Amino acid sequence: MLDDPTRKYQPFRPIRLRDRRWPDHTITRPPVWMSTDLRDGNQALFEPMDVERKRALYDCLVDVGFREIEVGFPSASQADYDFVRHLIDSDAIPEGVWIEVLTQARPDLIKRTFEAVAGAPRVIVHVYNATSPVFREVVFRQSAEGVQTMAVEAARQIRGLAAERPETAWRFQYSPETFSTTEPEFALSVVDAVTAVWDASADAPVIINLPATVEMASPNVYADQIEWMHRHLARREGIVLSVHPHNDRGTGVAAAELALMAGADRVEGCLFGNGERTGNVDLVTLALNLYTQGVHPGLDFSRINDVLRTVEHCTEIPVHPRHPYVGDLVFTAFSGSHQDAIRKGFAVQPEDGLWSVPYLTIDPRDLGRSYESVIRVNSQSGKGGMAYLMEQAYGVTLPRRLQVEFSRVVQAHMDAGGGEVAAEALWEIFEREYLRLESPIHYIGHSLFDAGGRQGLRLRIRRDGQVITLNGSGNGPIDALLDALGSPVRVRHYEEHSLSHGSDAGAVCFMELAAGGIDGDVYGVGMDANIVTASVRAVLSGVNRMASQAPAVLGNAASVARNASP
Amino acid sequence: MLDDPTRKYQPFRPIRLRDRRWPDHTITRPPVWMSTDLRDGNQALFEPMDVERKRALYDCLVDVGFREIEVGFPSASQADYDFVRHLIDSDAIPEGVWIEVLTQARPDLIKRTFEAVAGAPRVIVHVYNATSPVFREVVFRQSAEGVQTMAVEAARQIRGLAAERPETAWRFQYSPETFSTTEPEFALSVVDAVTAVWDASADAPVIINLPATVEMASPNVYADQIEWMHRHLARREGIVLSVHPHNDRGTGVAAAELALMAGADRVEGCLFGNGERTGNVDLVTLALNLYTQGVHPGLDFSRINDVLRTVEHCTEIPVHPRHPYVGDLVFTAFSGSHQDAIRKGFAVQPEDGLWSVPYLTIDPRDLGRSYESVIRVNSQSGKGGMAYLMEQAYGVTLPRRLQVEFSRVVQAHMDAGGGEVAAEALWEIFEREYLRLESPIHYIGHSLFDAGGRQGLRLRIRRDGQVITLNGSGNGPIDALLDALGSPVRVRHYEEHSLSHGSDAGAVCFMELAAGGIDGDVYGVGMDANIVTASVRAVLSGVNRMASQAPAVLGNAASVARNASP
Repeated sequence: MLDDPTRKYQPFRPIRLRDRRWPDHTITRPPVWMSTDLRDGNQALFEPMDVERKRALYDCLVDVGFREIEVGFPSASQADYDFVRHLIDSDAIPEGVWIEVLTQARPDLIKRTFEAVAGAPRVIVHVYNATSPVFREVVFRQSAEGVQTMAVEAARQIRGLAAERPETAWRFQYSPETFSTTEPEFALSVVDAVTAVWDASADAPVIINLPATVEMASPNVYADQIEWMHRHLARREGIVLSVHPHNDRGTGVAAAELALMAGADRVEGCLFGNGERTGNVDLVTLALNLYTQGVHPGLDFSRINDVLRTVEHCTEIPVHPRHPYVGDLVFTAFSGSHQDAIRKGFAVQPEDGLWSVPYLTIDPRDLGRSYESVIRVNSQSGKGGMAYLMEQAYGVTLPRRLQVEFSRVVQAHMDAGGGEVAAEALWEIFEREYLRLESPIHYIGHSLFDAGGRQGLRLRIRRDGQVITLNGSGNGPIDALLDALGSPVRVRHYEEHSLSHGSDAGAVCFMELAAGGIDGDVYGVGMDANIVTASVRAVLSGVNRMASQAPAVLGNAASVARNASP
Repeated sequence: MLDDPTRKYQPFRPIRLRDRRWPDHTITRPPVWMSTDLRDGNQALFEPMDVERKRALYDCLVDVGFREIEVGFPSASQADYDFVRHLIDSDAIPEGVWIEVLTQARPDLIKRTFEAVAGAPRVIVHVYNATSPVFREVVFRQSAEGVQTMAVEAARQIRGLAAERPETAWRFQYSPETFSTTEPEFALSVVDAVTAVWDASADAPVIINLPATVEMASPNVYADQIEWMHRHLARREGIVLSVHPHNDRGTGVAAAELALMAGADRVEGCLFGNGERTGNVDLVTLALNLYTQGVHPGLDFSRINDVLRTVEHCTEIPVHPRHPYVGDLVFTAFSGSHQDAIRKGFAVQPEDGLWSVPYLTIDPRDLGRSYESVIRVNSQSGKGGMAYLMEQAYGVTLPRRLQVEFSRVVQAHMDAGGGEVAAEALWEIFEREYLRLESPIHYIGHSLFDAGGRQGLRLRIRRDGQVITLNGSGNGPIDALLDALGSPVRVRHYEEHSLSHGSDAGAVCFMELAAGGIDGDVYGVGMDANIVTASVRAVLSGVNRMASQAPAVLGNAASVARNASP
């Protein structure tokens, strides 16, 4: 049982804010967006991104419309340093885009940061130090005065280094890290001192970023903190007020929204909420929440699935099926009454053209998606459902790419018939397409033999009514089979597993094959009690599936007469 | 590019709330929790739960401490009806637990609902109809008056049917579905009419549930709606005011928290936020958010991973690695500076005993978890990281259960050595444990032959310096190998895949084996260019790994003399 929490935890002490204004506000224009996917997001991955992935994500961010992109922490990591140089040296920073680099408030690191960005057209230098009591007392053992001096000296050094390099357009940013747990008066004092050094003004504004480094209380408390700062900052008109929410309590999106109502101008976060622990605030959800309120976010998610695929490729972290706007299941209605209401909503076109379909906050087509009505598995349902049914009912685990291929096969059947597909019907389609395809090549049998240290294989097939025997050898049965066939197909991937418990149970084998004249790869599937027979059948299944498009794959079996035997 | 949204979407019109009070409140006691995992959660699954899974989830909910559990919509689904009967007939409703059943406000469905729960000790009858303009005008084509009459008549029928069955303790609940998009005055009118029929009083309160069926605006707007109702309800003292937030805008948790500040007493939701589309509000996050503020939620998540496993088993939907409190990555720090701060925080034990470790809102041990500091893969890192490295660097995809087994092997190595494990070191451990284990049985070679229509296999091995030849047959090479060995091991699962592209590349084979005298299953792994050789080696690898504990697995190879050949 959970212990009594009062012995260990205490309520967060909210700020005293009189005459609070934010609850009466609504957001009527988009914030400035800053993506920290390549920095805060990247540092929270099991396997940090390599240059190829970082570049793919950077290009995606530019395409989506980000104009401020934090690209790394070059003084802390050689990989980050190299990537910053790669962007600059390959001229990858388009007009209007600012790269941002993070550094701690230490002279040597600041110096190294300026080296990293030498020659860049537009750079935001982002310096931070932690200001909260636990960091001052436990982590750094430093007085409040010392912390403020550290920030001020760093600001001064940055101003000086920038002035020496007029070929770059500079902007400055300061974050009191752990702002949300810092005494507000102290945070204000440090920030005011930094903005004085930078001489922040409406003509030359600086960025002040107030992170909820860890989300500590309900989002209204963060909004109060932001409004308090917004109303007390000495040079408010010279500041782009930025927030950086995390999501430890699952309220990061709300915290950002309420903070914008409270006076913030800018939001830092990641696509789909990647980042340390529970993640940074999700910029996609924030942007599309604005869009559904009639406010254009200035970011383009009209092909959201492409963005999703890029992010999943780069981070190796899947987006959840219930993630707002982009999850596999969020435009899906399973229940009959929901489906009915949605259908009726689609049928009525309101004269004012305003969207009012029950249960859907946004038209999925605006995101390049479609509405899906699902009763178990039907023609509109995703491959996940089919793969699930096949595994549960028949013990067959389809490889991921085969799921994609098979879902197209099923859809073709469904568009004709419509309605629900039970597991049995699905299996029938699977058998017909892969397992019982015995033309042009009909498998009769094979045997293995020793071919002078190599694996020999004798194959017996029927082709156009004639029995053919073919011999081949290789370093394994599959290799020997392809040799016997004399077929130009290549095995791209091979996968086989038992169907149920016991050594005498069947096995299913999946062969991903490629050949000239065929777009993409094609799967063949074989099932047999003997694992070798399953793999032979899988190759022949794939060859038969390719034969009409690329007859050459039949190899020696293409010409019957030459190989005919009694 | 996204179109101009103002042509299609308009801002949600917030309620006019004067003298708003909720932003000054904090939550000091837990709400009444109602789990709708088995109803709203279940209807949103690709494959709805069967009775076994429903029961497992129900038992988990009872164990966690839920006292109100919505178990189905028995008038709409025979499966739900049967499950409700199963709970009642198997006496599965412990003292203090109320089952809840949902029904639409239609006479035949209400009648059927009472049949479903006949004989239950404690039942909440939950009736609803949709009240918002789009439902009245587009879906039902019904006047506001008609909608209110429908609710009132349903309330009257329910009161009557309950009075006829005094053997059950009854409670009544009404939801104006789509409350959040209903004109507040109309929602109030319907609710007041229903509570009058039920004669709601402090002595006999009823539940009034106000759903954000679809999340339409920022969470402060929902809080305003709840506070407005809270302050205007005719029989407020006779009402348990309930909220039912969804998560379409990613702010469901915030909406529930602000609604509790605004006067709500009760929350309906699901574990880990399962449910239609983007899900219902996540009750686990809500409960643990309270816990970290020193308020005991009255739910027990001290073994949160067990709850996670049950939910994942029952719903077949994974919980995201960044999900608050429970995700794989949320107690993990990757960055060196975070790790350093956390280490220092752990080292300092504050005299007041209060938790103040940087970057962690809760002590992971309170949830039965541990803090993980990860520099790529080290002894504290999860099996996911190892599996990832093995796949990226060596193209080997470990089966899930082997990941678990292998992570223990790695940990044993790490506890001795400590520090980081690179992919190369991991591979060395893997090779030593599985691939290069040639004792007691050292594999020399094998050949296949035809054994009168069955698969014959001749195996040559070395045992204690003597070469042995063994013959066997079966319906495939693995079966024949076990016959040749005369070993009592059983193959539980077999899996094999190619290592890289091309038919001449190697294959890796995984055999999950079982035998008497061995707890659980044991893996053997084999690699070879020949798929049959890989599977033979995999069996021998597993047999060798089991041999010290259960010598009988060596079969004919146990006694060398008998089988020795020159």
